[in-house]
Amino acid sequence: MKHVDYKSVELEHFPDPQSKGAGIRWLISEADGAPNFAMRMIEIEPCGYSPLHSHKGEHEVFVWSGQGELKIEGETLPLVQGTAVFIPEDVEHQFANASDTEKLEFICVVPVKK
Amino acid sequence: MKHVDYKSVELEHFPDPQSKGAGIRWLISEADGAPNFAMRMIEIEPCGYSPLHSHKGEHEVFVWSGQGELKIEGETLPLVQGTAVFIPEDVEHQFANASDTEKLEFICVVPVKK
Repeated sequence: MKHVDYKSVELEHFPDPQSKGAGIRWLISEADGAPNFAMRMIEIEPCGYSPLHSHKGEHEVFVWSGQGELKIEGETLPLVQGTAVFIPEDVEHQFANASDTEKLEFICVVPVKK
Repeated sequence: MKHVDYKSVELEHFPDPQSKGAGIRWLISEADGAPNFAMRMIEIEPCGYSPLHSHKGEHEVFVWSGQGELKIEGETLPLVQGTAVFIPEDVEHQFANASDTEKLEFICVVPVKK
């Protein structure tokens, strides 16, 4: 069992050089005994973005704060508080903060690598 | 791919007679092609609660709004905005709304039954 305030979990900088101002908090992961999927909070600074990429393993996203944009399948979709997004594996996507003053934060659940 | 505001997803009443004022929105599920885990928003009305129970399949929880309590392993833990909780399978637990005016809402991710 784990019970934690998300802000108490360390914010790690995204190592990908194709991202800007993006970080991640691993809220629940294999290190906590989670056998199937991991819950992370992604934080993107004003004017920042995640890499435009695709990969194995789906994303299930829920926007916690801020305003952003999701580029996916040739579209640009809005991200606001309460938006849920399912991104299947191998679908190219990029998250960007649409604000120049406020950070964008969203829950992103991924399968544990087996 | 699915992109949706959580409030646009139907709120279904919990069928369990051991719950009170509890409902669920299936934000992302097998019906959307999610292969491994499902994201739901649980909503508990003021003074309501979920059943005290245990089951196969873990929960990964993130509190979206309101104030509540989690009974687990002989403890009562607070649930506030931004609380993340990992509940392993077979661990007895119960969610309760601690407010008599405001609803409690939390994301609850569960494995897809295979």
